[in-house]
Amino acid sequence: MCRWMAWLGQPVLVEELLFNTEHGIVDQSLHSRLGAEPTNGDGFGFGWYGSGDGPGVYHSVSPAWADANLRELAGHMESPLFMAHVRAAIGSSVQQTNCHPFRYGDWLFVHNGYLGGFHNVRRELMLAIDPALFAEVVGSTDTEVVFYLALTLGLQEDPLGALERTVGVIESIAARHGIEDAVQATFGVSDGTTLWGVRYATTGPARSLFASANVDAVRRLHPDNPRFQRLSPNDRLIVSEPFSDLPGIWDEIPPSTSVTVRSGGVLEQQPFRPRVPQFATMADA
Amino acid sequence: MCRWMAWLGQPVLVEELLFNTEHGIVDQSLHSRLGAEPTNGDGFGFGWYGSGDGPGVYHSVSPAWADANLRELAGHMESPLFMAHVRAAIGSSVQQTNCHPFRYGDWLFVHNGYLGGFHNVRRELMLAIDPALFAEVVGSTDTEVVFYLALTLGLQEDPLGALERTVGVIESIAARHGIEDAVQATFGVSDGTTLWGVRYATTGPARSLFASANVDAVRRLHPDNPRFQRLSPNDRLIVSEPFSDLPGIWDEIPPSTSVTVRSGGVLEQQPFRPRVPQFATMADA
Amino acid sequence: MCRWMAWLGQPVLVEELLFNTEHGIVDQSLHSRLGAEPTNGDGFGFGWYGSGDGPGVYHSVSPAWADANLRELAGHMESPLFMAHVRAAIGSSVQQTNCHPFRYGDWLFVHNGYLGGFHNVRRELMLAIDPALFAEVVGSTDTEVVFYLALTLGLQEDPLGALERTVGVIESIAARHGIEDAVQATFGVSDGTTLWGVRYATTGPARSLFASANVDAVRRLHPDNPRFQRLSPNDRLIVSEPFSDLPGIWDEIPPSTSVTVRSGGVLEQQPFRPRVPQFATMADA
Amino acid sequence: MCRWMAWLGQPVLVEELLFNTEHGIVDQSLHSRLGAEPTNGDGFGFGWYGSGDGPGVYHSVSPAWADANLRELAGHMESPLFMAHVRAAIGSSVQQTNCHPFRYGDWLFVHNGYLGGFHNVRRELMLAIDPALFAEVVGSTDTEVVFYLALTLGLQEDPLGALERTVGVIESIAARHGIEDAVQATFGVSDGTTLWGVRYATTGPARSLFASANVDAVRRLHPDNPRFQRLSPNDRLIVSEPFSDLPGIWDEIPPSTSVTVRSGGVLEQQPFRPRVPQFATMADA
Repeated sequence: MCRWMAWLGQPVLVEELLFNTEHGIVDQSLHSRLGAEPTNGDGFGFGWYGSGDGPGVYHSVSPAWADANLRELAGHMESPLFMAHVRAAIGSSVQQTNCHPFRYGDWLFVHNGYLGGFHNVRRELMLAIDPALFAEVVGSTDTEVVFYLALTLGLQEDPLGALERTVGVIESIAARHGIEDAVQATFGVSDGTTLWGVRYATTGPARSLFASANVDAVRRLHPDNPRFQRLSPNDRLIVSEPFSDLPGIWDEIPPSTSVTVRSGGVLEQQPFRPRVPQFATMADA
Repeated sequence: MCRWMAWLGQPVLVEELLFNTEHGIVDQSLHSRLGAEPTNGDGFGFGWYGSGDGPGVYHSVSPAWADANLRELAGHMESPLFMAHVRAAIGSSVQQTNCHPFRYGDWLFVHNGYLGGFHNVRRELMLAIDPALFAEVVGSTDTEVVFYLALTLGLQEDPLGALERTVGVIESIAARHGIEDAVQATFGVSDGTTLWGVRYATTGPARSLFASANVDAVRRLHPDNPRFQRLSPNDRLIVSEPFSDLPGIWDEIPPSTSVTVRSGGVLEQQPFRPRVPQFATMADA
Repeated sequence: MCRWMAWLGQPVLVEELLFNTEHGIVDQSLHSRLGAEPTNGDGFGFGWYGSGDGPGVYHSVSPAWADANLRELAGHMESPLFMAHVRAAIGSSVQQTNCHPFRYGDWLFVHNGYLGGFHNVRRELMLAIDPALFAEVVGSTDTEVVFYLALTLGLQEDPLGALERTVGVIESIAARHGIEDAVQATFGVSDGTTLWGVRYATTGPARSLFASANVDAVRRLHPDNPRFQRLSPNDRLIVSEPFSDLPGIWDEIPPSTSVTVRSGGVLEQQPFRPRVPQFATMADA
Repeated sequence: MCRWMAWLGQPVLVEELLFNTEHGIVDQSLHSRLGAEPTNGDGFGFGWYGSGDGPGVYHSVSPAWADANLRELAGHMESPLFMAHVRAAIGSSVQQTNCHPFRYGDWLFVHNGYLGGFHNVRRELMLAIDPALFAEVVGSTDTEVVFYLALTLGLQEDPLGALERTVGVIESIAARHGIEDAVQATFGVSDGTTLWGVRYATTGPARSLFASANVDAVRRLHPDNPRFQRLSPNDRLIVSEPFSDLPGIWDEIPPSTSVTVRSGGVLEQQPFRPRVPQFATMADA
């Protein structure tokens, strides 16, 4: 039901992680092992920081495995911080405005999962978005609504807190509609400097999420890759699904947990606890 | 800023009107003469009544002139009632969910023009849509919002009245935002039996709209076309822009006017007078 | 590595066979059971006979499961004779000119399989095509080359004989290049009146091919479908992969065998024996 | 009938030349002034040298003016040497494999113009291509055939000589077919270090081609652009159509002339004289 990956570290040619990796994200578009569906062929998205102002995004309605432009871009673009996402649509159209990552200013956002009963709560969630941001929502996914709700609730000042509040608001609204599986999600967020990942589900097992253990592990993954032999301890990956089946390389991020990856390879972990902000009662009006 | 056409009459092969006509709608996609822009290359849409339940729609993000599938479909599909639309996007994405005609149940809807200051009034207009219909809005055009607002205000019971109320509501909301050019529009609507056309602008000259004069005129348009020589007085065309420069064939529909085309070639004309429905004050909440 | 289906019988709404059938061709695009690959997401094609001159074709680069236009067309188009094809590209681009069915005049052609070592024999095969037809080859698939070679070798006069000669020529050229698996194929061909199917492989097991057993079988497939309860003995299906797992409904077509389906439900079977035409030595020049 | 541009100089953000320039190449896709057609909406292509091995290419079937990805890439990619091309298809399909630039190894190739009677000479020209390169031709444009013919005739060793031989061969074959307007062309070629441009027509006026006069001229073009105020004398542009109407900035390249742009801003001009290579008689076999 989607797979994503994010890199923060030294600048690398994007294809190293998209195409040259065993069971990388593009391979997962055709043969996911841990996802809800093996096929994630309903479009691709890629967001990166590098030249120019803020992040660039590339959104494609072609399956990642068949997108000739994606192969070209990945082979000729270097970035120290990027996210890629392969999509399995559940209901909403396959169109560029529904592809992840979503962007606002310097911020990128990806999501694996869904909002339960989205069709029924879409209007209320849209009303909870800051009116000044309302017209920025141009696609029809649940993820874009989550992103603008998070922006409304302070994503740019306190990313993890804002996501806790966002999930809290969604669960609150869903509960009033009798929806039990309000949020099923892993989220990836970045401002171009730091990378945040969240794993959470209102009920049942949350979608999988992993962090690369450390630089030694990644070097073992690519023993013949001179680029990766030059890896520093600054480099980290967050992925929906490990790039390889080799044990010992990936650390599973527990459910109801968030991670913060900072420059320098720092990886911090903390509980993720949804809560309803007091002023969210406005959204109930 | 878009061009459209609609046919109601005997079943014809669609290509007769899309491709085999002098200065037809596909030619207008590349060389519009009366439109705000000569190029209408931001996608194409086609809706038709015939086999199956309700109307079918074909939406393409390719320019009409370059869409191989469109040529195929037009050449192998007959319909007694269809609409085609070529788009010049102004701000919103080129994607299938933004292509006209929009459909709901048995209803098709096309629009040439724009809502002034749409970015600023989008939220309020969306709130004025029946909550049960809210989640059906999946694109980002002003037209789709107009359509669902019209459905909210009774399109299926009283099409022209509902459009008058819809325009009234939009003008009312726009006025509160200091927007002067609230609505610039020609609309085309059908339920599969009857065809309605509207020409209206809040300020300034309205987009052009024409009706075919009568069967003799159409026959003169295609003197060598045996199909059209068999035309009956039942056949009518409504178009943004005449298919040919021959004088005497097309009747311009005046501004602030609607037309109703019924089976049997009946063409009725009446004033179009926007007004704010009493219960629309709800939309102001 | 592709899946296809063909219908010859009374006019049916296309969606009955594409979408409303258990494990139909669109479902096979995502979850093929008998194909070389489970996913056939590299485009879709559909060719039909009905209104207008000759067959129409619809070619899409979207996966069949995600193509909104396909669902519309299938739901609003009736045809007594049509073919559909879902593609898994092996090397050549995902583009409309590489989608099946290929068409020439009144003829449609689909293929499941591949030419072994196509990259190495492409030039020689292209040279064997009638020079007057050479410029009609506009895509980069092996199938299109097979089709124009078959047209060169008499497809329009003697379809099965021409295909036997075509396979003979290909095997002859491949042999000179040391290619063992020259042809792996099921072919579907029609001229708008008759439908031919071929199952053949130079070496190893040929791709699967099945014919619907008889009208009673199809009625059992759709016990609740009033349309199919009205089926006559005139109706036949040829498919790469059965639409349902119910035993007794489908007859497997043996390897090295062709079938001819004629109006009236007639199904004839005969051996398929490739042979090199005498004048094909020209192709060796 | 297509417009192109090429940059060789210091690394610049691509959008500076694609979007931020008065009457740049993207604007020319919608409103060409000097081209055979005002609209060049049948796809876009962009090739650049920078990170990774050899040049990258981005090919899009969307009109350049409406391609959201193009805007993103241009805004977040820097390159010292790149080419962009907007296409007006004349007969061949709008598909990525028909988009310029074409690439082989380190080489990029763009073309504005056409081969006269291409449909009639396509086969002979294809036969004149090195058999080892034949299978690399995967689209259906005349340009791709020209490119592979030029590679066959020594493009990588002697670019301008190879293009003179290529045009000579094409004119020779066309003459035998009674085609008078064999070649209408401006060509752009690069190997990642040097940039070559050619302006030539067998008969009649050749398509337009211009070189930027010198760095002072470009600085005057962008008085408010701090990036361009930092321009060095190393920077050159070759364009189908000037980016601005300001006189004195652009030097028209005469017909039957080629230019060579080398690192350091060197611009050399020499006559372009097609000639038939002796060994091209092989191609006549």
